[in-house]
Amino acid sequence: MSVLVVGTVAFDSIETPFGSAERILGGSASYFALGASFFAPVRIVGVIGRDFPQDYLDIFTQRNIDIGGIQRADGDTFHWRGRYHEDINLRDTIELHLNVLGGFEPKLPEPYRDAEYVFLGNIDPGMQMEVLRQLRRLKLVALDTMDHWIRESQQELRRVLERIEILVVNDSEARLLSGYDNNVKAARAILKMGPQMVLIKRGEYGVLQFSDSSMFATPAYPLEEVFDPTGAGDSFAGGFLGQLARSGDQSQGGLRRAIVYGSVVASFTVEDFGVKRLTDVSLAEIEERYRRFVQLTDFHS
Amino acid sequence: MSVLVVGTVAFDSIETPFGSAERILGGSASYFALGASFFAPVRIVGVIGRDFPQDYLDIFTQRNIDIGGIQRADGDTFHWRGRYHEDINLRDTIELHLNVLGGFEPKLPEPYRDAEYVFLGNIDPGMQMEVLRQLRRLKLVALDTMDHWIRESQQELRRVLERIEILVVNDSEARLLSGYDNNVKAARAILKMGPQMVLIKRGEYGVLQFSDSSMFATPAYPLEEVFDPTGAGDSFAGGFLGQLARSGDQSQGGLRRAIVYGSVVASFTVEDFGVKRLTDVSLAEIEERYRRFVQLTDFHS
Repeated sequence: MSVLVVGTVAFDSIETPFGSAERILGGSASYFALGASFFAPVRIVGVIGRDFPQDYLDIFTQRNIDIGGIQRADGDTFHWRGRYHEDINLRDTIELHLNVLGGFEPKLPEPYRDAEYVFLGNIDPGMQMEVLRQLRRLKLVALDTMDHWIRESQQELRRVLERIEILVVNDSEARLLSGYDNNVKAARAILKMGPQMVLIKRGEYGVLQFSDSSMFATPAYPLEEVFDPTGAGDSFAGGFLGQLARSGDQSQGGLRRAIVYGSVVASFTVEDFGVKRLTDVSLAEIEERYRRFVQLTDFHS
Repeated sequence: MSVLVVGTVAFDSIETPFGSAERILGGSASYFALGASFFAPVRIVGVIGRDFPQDYLDIFTQRNIDIGGIQRADGDTFHWRGRYHEDINLRDTIELHLNVLGGFEPKLPEPYRDAEYVFLGNIDPGMQMEVLRQLRRLKLVALDTMDHWIRESQQELRRVLERIEILVVNDSEARLLSGYDNNVKAARAILKMGPQMVLIKRGEYGVLQFSDSSMFATPAYPLEEVFDPTGAGDSFAGGFLGQLARSGDQSQGGLRRAIVYGSVVASFTVEDFGVKRLTDVSLAEIEERYRRFVQLTDFHS
């Protein structure tokens, strides 16, 4: 079962307390695709500029990611520049150049339209809706968004929320969207907006999952070094949907195990700059850390 | 198997976004004792002033807590006044009057000296050491401390740490004591100072447990309402040591289940002001929430 992602493919320029990197491969679709690629075939839809190097596209194809949905447009690639604080959970956006993303009209190649596992990465809700319109057979659609769209395009975002299954947000976004400070109340309010499931990402503190019938909480895998948190959330979503596509198991247990796989993938992502760790980690290492995650959290035996 | 706690018995005056309370029963020993009392007989050692009402002592005896170790001294009872922010994880100390605590010399009644489960609550490390000297047969000593002692009496604190089994701290205290920002590194450094186990409390985000051979992470129980976080950490420690005394099970699994019982007790504590919820909750409710905690975190089945 393959996974389709629509989102940004970008240049990231990143400064953390541990170093910096210029114009490395970034973007929500990139992190998601690489995270999902360990578990299932992945198709990526996005837009890049004339300046986007072949080397970066090769990173996708080396992981067997189908890049037939990446359009090349006249202009420069979307570029984000961010700086992390000493407290690595905090960051500032220093520069944001939409460039070719501004005029992006997502077009799904014909074979993509039957996708069954879909991730609508953090882009304009109007674009997310346009993707939904082009999809025929929907099995599961997950969506990410951010404070900007919640503030500026809430009406459009709400219409998309009515049509998706899973919302993936961090806790401040859940608060902003729902108007509640409390995660349980926030999730309950969001479930009324349409999604059957809300995943609240809490960075180094783990993930909360809410549905009408169930609540699941898991810590994050404790790491000795966090070099660069960029892409943790999107690669979490990639591991999550990738594992769902691999297992086909949407039971409560299957969904929970997919959340843990997502957490494991994210724990690798932050161990190096940009997508680097995602390109050199193996599925065997992911499975090994999943087993350690079981040991980390088990108190029954 | 009984549990002994030495710590503060206090008046707390508390302001939260949801209301305020004046001179209610507080203190590390009070919260610990009430939290532990669901699981095992508890003996409490502390000091109170002439102004301490019989009603408050009755709260202990109603839960079968042995108050034979509470001394009454000339002067006023220790009084803490604190205010919580809109973000209920943050608080300021508005007033702190040591009063009779200043001259406290802990004296263990003779039958207390054979205690096997001991909690040295957050007081001067010199007092904590004095208690250790009076104990004969030690099974398990856990210790709590705070930034003030880490900064001002680190040498004395270090001597106590060499002689205890379990250190219970929050993440900022672990950082301050170890010099490491990262929890894994901080815990590893603290384990070298003497304790065989470090419990790092993270409030609404749960608990991390570290020993030489094992790492355990658990989320906190997600609550819809948090009225007053005061005493969460001490009642967590009470539930933890109480359950260890009840089960006698110090296997890795036994220790982990005790951590979860501690988390469950703390989740009740914060549902109302001061010790109120701890005085009206039943063991049956605690066991029921423990089962829900298992469901909350289980992803194996």
